[in-house]
Amino acid sequence: MSMNNRLSTSISSSSSAFLGQDRHFKIRPQNVFLPPKNPRICKCVATTPTEKTAYMTKVSRNANMAKLQAGYLFPEIARRRAAHMLKYPDAQVISLGIGDTTEPIPEVITSAMAKRSHGLSTIEGYSGYGAEQGEKLLRAAIASTFYANLGIEEDDIFVSDGAKSDISRLQVLFGSGVTMAVQDPSYPAYVDSSVIMGQTGQYQKDFGYGKIEYMKCTPENGFFPDLSTVSRTDVIFFCSPNNPTGSAATRDQLTQLVQFAKENGSIIVYDSAYALYMSDDNPKSIFEIPGGREVAIETSSFSKYAGFTGVRLGWTVVPKELKFSDGFPVAKDFNRIVCTCFNGASNIAQSGGLACLSPEGLEAMQEVIGFYKENTEIIVETFTSLGFNVYGGKNAPYVWVHFPGQSSWEVFGEILEKTHVVTTPGSGFGPGGEGFVRVSAFGHRANVLEACRRFRELYK
Amino acid sequence: MSMNNRLSTSISSSSSAFLGQDRHFKIRPQNVFLPPKNPRICKCVATTPTEKTAYMTKVSRNANMAKLQAGYLFPEIARRRAAHMLKYPDAQVISLGIGDTTEPIPEVITSAMAKRSHGLSTIEGYSGYGAEQGEKLLRAAIASTFYANLGIEEDDIFVSDGAKSDISRLQVLFGSGVTMAVQDPSYPAYVDSSVIMGQTGQYQKDFGYGKIEYMKCTPENGFFPDLSTVSRTDVIFFCSPNNPTGSAATRDQLTQLVQFAKENGSIIVYDSAYALYMSDDNPKSIFEIPGGREVAIETSSFSKYAGFTGVRLGWTVVPKELKFSDGFPVAKDFNRIVCTCFNGASNIAQSGGLACLSPEGLEAMQEVIGFYKENTEIIVETFTSLGFNVYGGKNAPYVWVHFPGQSSWEVFGEILEKTHVVTTPGSGFGPGGEGFVRVSAFGHRANVLEACRRFRELYK
Repeated sequence: MSMNNRLSTSISSSSSAFLGQDRHFKIRPQNVFLPPKNPRICKCVATTPTEKTAYMTKVSRNANMAKLQAGYLFPEIARRRAAHMLKYPDAQVISLGIGDTTEPIPEVITSAMAKRSHGLSTIEGYSGYGAEQGEKLLRAAIASTFYANLGIEEDDIFVSDGAKSDISRLQVLFGSGVTMAVQDPSYPAYVDSSVIMGQTGQYQKDFGYGKIEYMKCTPENGFFPDLSTVSRTDVIFFCSPNNPTGSAATRDQLTQLVQFAKENGSIIVYDSAYALYMSDDNPKSIFEIPGGREVAIETSSFSKYAGFTGVRLGWTVVPKELKFSDGFPVAKDFNRIVCTCFNGASNIAQSGGLACLSPEGLEAMQEVIGFYKENTEIIVETFTSLGFNVYGGKNAPYVWVHFPGQSSWEVFGEILEKTHVVTTPGSGFGPGGEGFVRVSAFGHRANVLEACRRFRELYK
Repeated sequence: MSMNNRLSTSISSSSSAFLGQDRHFKIRPQNVFLPPKNPRICKCVATTPTEKTAYMTKVSRNANMAKLQAGYLFPEIARRRAAHMLKYPDAQVISLGIGDTTEPIPEVITSAMAKRSHGLSTIEGYSGYGAEQGEKLLRAAIASTFYANLGIEEDDIFVSDGAKSDISRLQVLFGSGVTMAVQDPSYPAYVDSSVIMGQTGQYQKDFGYGKIEYMKCTPENGFFPDLSTVSRTDVIFFCSPNNPTGSAATRDQLTQLVQFAKENGSIIVYDSAYALYMSDDNPKSIFEIPGGREVAIETSSFSKYAGFTGVRLGWTVVPKELKFSDGFPVAKDFNRIVCTCFNGASNIAQSGGLACLSPEGLEAMQEVIGFYKENTEIIVETFTSLGFNVYGGKNAPYVWVHFPGQSSWEVFGEILEKTHVVTTPGSGFGPGGEGFVRVSAFGHRANVLEACRRFRELYK
């Protein structure tokens, strides 16, 4: 009997027992193995079109696009997942890969969106173009919920359709002339958007792109770069709690980072999309650090707090105090980008965001976050008990598992082949991720439990 | 008694009589002069911050941003409108400026969005990240509704949060190395995004930006450029029915355009956001022209069809047949941009889009469009009867009024000052718009009638 068959036949059996009686994870009633509604298959356009045509325009392909390696990481994983499902049509694949939320959005939030939707059919409730920067009430609520007493005001907040889109808009703002640093490993959108904008050189295997300063984040340095070895760049992308390593920088470390940026005259783009997942008492915003407003932009999102990955809502904070070298306020240029290249987030999503920040909404979000944090504990415990060195998890919904000396893609492939569980290969996040695999805690409880059961089977 | 007072005091009187008894425009029951819910005030960040700080980063401001003139057009108009409202706090300002939809979205569409919202609270109805390219059903519906028998397939369609965002993503795709042509006048996002990407030279008053090929569209050439005088460029932005002139290119003209692009090896970016407003039997898509798929991208939107300006939903078609000079498919690079710089349109908005394309939705959209077309007729009749040369209107919701020898901004200012009606100065759309004012037909019927009454008062 093959591994595949063994796994398939055991699916209906309860798999929560393995944690022992002393652990009581809340289990929501839910179906296991719901068929994916939106398989994220990046339908790459055929390079050999069915209709043969000799005609080509005389427009040169953007050389920066040609520098990009393969597809964007997550569509690439979706592609491999889809190929796997073709190979094993009966396998019950569990995705702990993409970091995609799975739990329903609390009703207090969806009711507000439904109400706004219905309202759009009435004279009183209809609204057309909103401010590109977002609705005033939402900007104010974001400022007071996340940045109270940090010197951030409503008009420093730019509401968006998500942090990923804002990262690209920030790159367009900076232009092709800047240099940039990233944590290595890091969320691939920082590097890829930098390549697209022409800020980098060519890609070199095992080294990454030329002109990018990769700040190594390893178990040895506690996943915080040794800044004394980092060269000056114009822009520093910094994500904490970190995707993919799951580690969160301490107040002391962030103070070092702000100091480093100030000495070098750099701008930090601080991604705090997982801030509410922290268990430790680390800063939730870069603006908690004195001087932060003079050196940093912060981007964040409702995606992982309220399950808004499909609804699309985020924000970026550009403080008035942040200036280019000629004294021109960065916020003024970002405002121009937002007005020219964007037309505001969906008004319905914005109503949802406002509901998220009501007292009931905040409580409901905390419950969703708490649920995923319990998933994280299950995954951490599983890999730890199997003897792996496991990082992250405590302050972020990602578990960073070490497979020393092995290729990430090979480990990814083996896990997928033998357990039908999709993870993310660490090297997809940069050269520094080689030898690691990221396991996401976003999943239905029963699926997380089942995946962990399969991990135990594979690595026992 | 000042003009201002005269207008204010007469507001409650019926103003529909002036059209005479032989015209029967449908008048929807509605309140006049609803207070604007989202005054589009572009809160420009103060250049003199209250908190004095000497610190500046060492990051150079993107030189392309510095090339941009003033603010993006529409926020600039919103700013002037706000200033006017401060000056005349009791004036009842009517906006026929921005082109912002005012009529409620048909219930068949909002119900679908409300249902999707509620569904997100359930295990069965929840969905996280969708495909960056859009939901399969919606892509298929767009392909079959707008491109049946034109050789465009579901996977050629990229669903987005609106045409404006897609225009910027297309510019990022092309990069800084391309040259571009635009109709002059044209929707400002084409030129501004080109400037931001570094495709242009500096701005020269009365001439526009260096390196941009301005294709003059005037009453003399029927608002279709004389292509024999147009220099070759890599990219040609072409909007038909046109914003702002309201004219639509004929089949013969579009055939010339495709031929021109083919001879030059250019890529046409065809903006068809107003296609359903056409009364004449012109092509509604560039792909109706033989060879179009080898030379053109098309972008469009639900904004003006279904009142989705605030909901945010559009799409871009990149045919497989379109290739860069090295044979690489443009769609493949656009797919990479969409996957890296965007995370898909809001799932709720996409449910709305799908409802728009149901038989009931299509009928409801036609009714909304019909309503605005009646507004257009009222405006055209008003200016025509006042002796102005009036263009557009028949095939688009914009009326292009000629004020020969006058400055557009001055005419705009005079109309605002004396009638409290916001229009759009033609020169805001490029040097070729000087001497014109664009009057938008998007407005509540009573407001359009009242605005026209005031125009008659001013120009009698």
